[in-house]
Amino acid sequence: MNATTINAPAGTPFVEVTREFDATPAQLFKVTTDPNLIAEWLGPRGLEMTVESYDVRPGGSYRYIHKDESGEYAFRGVFHAVEQDKLVIQTFEWEGAPGEVSLDKMTFEPTETGVRLHQRSVFPSIETRDLFVESGMEVGIRDSMDRLAALVAKEG
Amino acid sequence: MNATTINAPAGTPFVEVTREFDATPAQLFKVTTDPNLIAEWLGPRGLEMTVESYDVRPGGSYRYIHKDESGEYAFRGVFHAVEQDKLVIQTFEWEGAPGEVSLDKMTFEPTETGVRLHQRSVFPSIETRDLFVESGMEVGIRDSMDRLAALVAKEG
Repeated sequence: MNATTINAPAGTPFVEVTREFDATPAQLFKVTTDPNLIAEWLGPRGLEMTVESYDVRPGGSYRYIHKDESGEYAFRGVFHAVEQDKLVIQTFEWEGAPGEVSLDKMTFEPTETGVRLHQRSVFPSIETRDLFVESGMEVGIRDSMDRLAALVAKEG
Repeated sequence: MNATTINAPAGTPFVEVTREFDATPAQLFKVTTDPNLIAEWLGPRGLEMTVESYDVRPGGSYRYIHKDESGEYAFRGVFHAVEQDKLVIQTFEWEGAPGEVSLDKMTFEPTETGVRLHQRSVFPSIETRDLFVESGMEVGIRDSMDRLAALVAKEG
């Protein structure tokens, strides 16, 4: 299984995630942006996820809820840009901290053996980024990437 | 005339703008978000501005073009959140640097004598922020705020 690289430099509001997949950019893009598949890979394992909307087009919006024994966590955002098989740029807000909005840019780059997914998240402040890192972000990202890899292999 | 404060700390992707207006939050919000008035205040003086769309609602999008003797500059984005008289959060992209998207958060806070407009822009990288500052950002922001103040006084 390929490794997920997470880079969150101290004193910055940035988080970068890189992961290679044994698939074409088109295959990975299709699975990643399919509203009916989101609940099967996005977020840490063991959470129940309800996707209210996930309208992947410029100006489209999304909202989903993660639920575990400690409570419910709702997230929302809008899509700024969507380029088929190449790029998604979207906002991200946890409703528990209203007004603290991040911007996520996800690119799909072909490699010699597959596709490289790269996500750059820019938080509204260094403090917000640090809270996100301390909240267990890394486990959630690694689980998401591993679940996505399994799903891409299955959906091919 | 009230002063505009611009704060762009070195080594960060942030720009903060603060300006007080002799108006109510409702008056300032109305003028600031009116699509028919955008061309009268947004940007440096002396540019010709064409507003293609400016749909101020969550998921709404905008696009406008600034034109001067050196050429045309198109900007676009989507609105993430709009709270009447209080808050606007939107993305911002100059089409000359596609994929380099900022997030702007604008708040309208009542003060004893009027309203304080505060805008925090978060750029996708420190380098992009620095290029924006070097491109003459400060003149554009000060002109915009002064033009907005004059317009609010007129539109009341």
